[in-house]
Amino acid sequence: MELQAMGQAAKQAAFTLATTATAQKNQALAFIADELEARQAEILAANEKDLAAAREGGMSEALLDRLMLNESRLAAIAGDVRNVIGLPDPVGAELDSRVLENGMRLSRRRVPLGVVGVIYEARPNVTIDIAALCLKTGNASILRGGRETFHSNMALVSVIQQALEKAGLPAAAVQYIAKPDRELVSELLTMDQYVDMIIPRGGAGLHKMCKEKSTIPVIIGGFGISHAFVDQSADLARALDVVENAKVQRPSACNALDTLLVHEAVAAQFLPMLAARMNQNKVTLVAEAQALGLLKGQADQLRAAQEGDFDTEWLSYTLGVKLVPDVDAAIQHMQAHNASHSDAILTNDLMSAERFINAAGSAAVYVNASTRFTDGAQFGLGAEVAVSTQKLHARGPMGLEELTSYKWVGQADYLCRR
Amino acid sequence: MELQAMGQAAKQAAFTLATTATAQKNQALAFIADELEARQAEILAANEKDLAAAREGGMSEALLDRLMLNESRLAAIAGDVRNVIGLPDPVGAELDSRVLENGMRLSRRRVPLGVVGVIYEARPNVTIDIAALCLKTGNASILRGGRETFHSNMALVSVIQQALEKAGLPAAAVQYIAKPDRELVSELLTMDQYVDMIIPRGGAGLHKMCKEKSTIPVIIGGFGISHAFVDQSADLARALDVVENAKVQRPSACNALDTLLVHEAVAAQFLPMLAARMNQNKVTLVAEAQALGLLKGQADQLRAAQEGDFDTEWLSYTLGVKLVPDVDAAIQHMQAHNASHSDAILTNDLMSAERFINAAGSAAVYVNASTRFTDGAQFGLGAEVAVSTQKLHARGPMGLEELTSYKWVGQADYLCRR
Repeated sequence: MELQAMGQAAKQAAFTLATTATAQKNQALAFIADELEARQAEILAANEKDLAAAREGGMSEALLDRLMLNESRLAAIAGDVRNVIGLPDPVGAELDSRVLENGMRLSRRRVPLGVVGVIYEARPNVTIDIAALCLKTGNASILRGGRETFHSNMALVSVIQQALEKAGLPAAAVQYIAKPDRELVSELLTMDQYVDMIIPRGGAGLHKMCKEKSTIPVIIGGFGISHAFVDQSADLARALDVVENAKVQRPSACNALDTLLVHEAVAAQFLPMLAARMNQNKVTLVAEAQALGLLKGQADQLRAAQEGDFDTEWLSYTLGVKLVPDVDAAIQHMQAHNASHSDAILTNDLMSAERFINAAGSAAVYVNASTRFTDGAQFGLGAEVAVSTQKLHARGPMGLEELTSYKWVGQADYLCRR
Repeated sequence: MELQAMGQAAKQAAFTLATTATAQKNQALAFIADELEARQAEILAANEKDLAAAREGGMSEALLDRLMLNESRLAAIAGDVRNVIGLPDPVGAELDSRVLENGMRLSRRRVPLGVVGVIYEARPNVTIDIAALCLKTGNASILRGGRETFHSNMALVSVIQQALEKAGLPAAAVQYIAKPDRELVSELLTMDQYVDMIIPRGGAGLHKMCKEKSTIPVIIGGFGISHAFVDQSADLARALDVVENAKVQRPSACNALDTLLVHEAVAAQFLPMLAARMNQNKVTLVAEAQALGLLKGQADQLRAAQEGDFDTEWLSYTLGVKLVPDVDAAIQHMQAHNASHSDAILTNDLMSAERFINAAGSAAVYVNASTRFTDGAQFGLGAEVAVSTQKLHARGPMGLEELTSYKWVGQADYLCRR
């Protein structure tokens, strides 16, 4: 019942935000950034409570580091909010404005989505990040962070709500589900009378639950096997640099390379080069039979590929390797193995490049560039809400525009439909 | 299991369609139109079976008419398919092509959604209509029509599949779930590994079921209370024409007027005009207290509004009437009563018009025009797949472009992410 009241308040706040001028939204953002700095001691003390509980619970050092705030991290978060102030407000822009035969001027006008529900884990910066992007685009948000960041998030949401009120905006524009009960998440997912979109930011389990339980549209993202295909015509030395970058720059990222497909005609030349470079990076190669033969004695860490290996998102220093006779065989392999995120072809052949671009089922396709580029900042979107791997609404990195919908606006001189 | 095989075949067909040239897709459409005419006797015989069964089952004359095909209706359906041939193919168009600082050319390229599942009722023309629009946009489709159109649909799908094969395209590009079992619909709604979008075309019950059961994105549409607000500055005689059109041209349509809001300052003048015009059209007025007083003795069919009347989509010759002191009060009423489809303001006041456009939460907003305009053909989209009242992906009438997604395409000269 309490959650229903939050939903109702969010919807009401969304009506206000929909017609709030950009200057006032930016003012609220500026207050958030200022208060993050002014209330630094309070926020860090709250974060310390979370850290103490997490340490006691035996959280790993890597996760503790994700949870941890300090002066410089808070300053960086405030800086991110100020960056959002500088981004153009997409709301109100008119698209495709035209005059119909009957004299009606018909346009589509960008509007906020309304109320966005966000379910996320670990990192407390997500709280500020999402709240700022939603606010900038005139959306109300209902946030639900992980239990391990509870005290940090309560402090951050208090900062946000204070800033909203100081700017003359409803505090309900950003709300936080504080109670730990898991059923509240299920309830949020069915509040379709109030909530317009659900963004899950977390692992595959969270996405699966949202997809199954939600009656509200969900942005699914972040999964998929990433492929690179080294074509016969590729510049092999430079292709190797791209493959190395895609695999080792940040293996834990969802756009890191999982499977390397190599044209048979250049395999004998390319695989020893690959083995040497991967040895330098301590990458394990998982190769199907043909590739295995060429890699034996070359690769330090090598094993034969087994069932399921080419369906595995490694997220580690591991790379699948397979030979293919041509670009169509590469595409067939990709279609059979969930190529839906980021894939690259390395080639100098125009037909191969065009065939790869059009036939790959991925959210992002690269010609002679690393799969690691799939990222809102790299794409110049200014900010990133999520990376979508579904096909409806938005695909790939989602920026501010992807937090908007549109309405049709028809203006005429007392026109009836005849 | 059988449905899973259909899903798999559809996905495979979608891969083929994604790179099929427009000319070949148009060829298949031309074959469909030709075969509809060539196999007319067979189709009408199948339709006669459905009609006979429906008559025996006691179907109403109105529904029988929706179900019925004849020579001229078949010719019209073939004509619609030929119209689709003439529409531009949105697939392959590049949006926002630009060169990033690092030299990468980044574009978004329109691509088909993949596999579209459509669940619909009664009218057999929907089978051809949806199949043609999906085919034009390179999408595979899985169709599920109502039981009462079974024989007609089997004949129509046979025509489509024959045409597909004649054009060298996979028959699985358009498939039909023939078995009557209701569980098949539930199964279709969870086949998210194969199906990219669900379009329900039917009543509120069907939409609700899809929203609750589907793990695939659903296009929800067609519902919402439609409002018109007659402002103080409106040209009352011409406003009356628009109100009449919105209410009586086709009361059963989802964009027909449900509630009329009238500015207090012009109510004494406007309501008698309204009563006279509505009397001519045998429209029942359902008025709140203030309006009721002004309508008494004027309106032939009049009753006091009760709880829930302003939340009712009438779909009949009934109109709710309420007085409001200003545009903001009109907006408040609309926000409280599910204004999400089509709403109109009748005014000569610039501030009121702009306030109404921006604050109304509807998919389509009109200034001095009838709500009846919300329609793909009226908007010049050439075709209409559905009218969406949700905010994600597409809103309002959906044409061919709304059956597409996009992929990001990055082209560079062996570029790594640094």
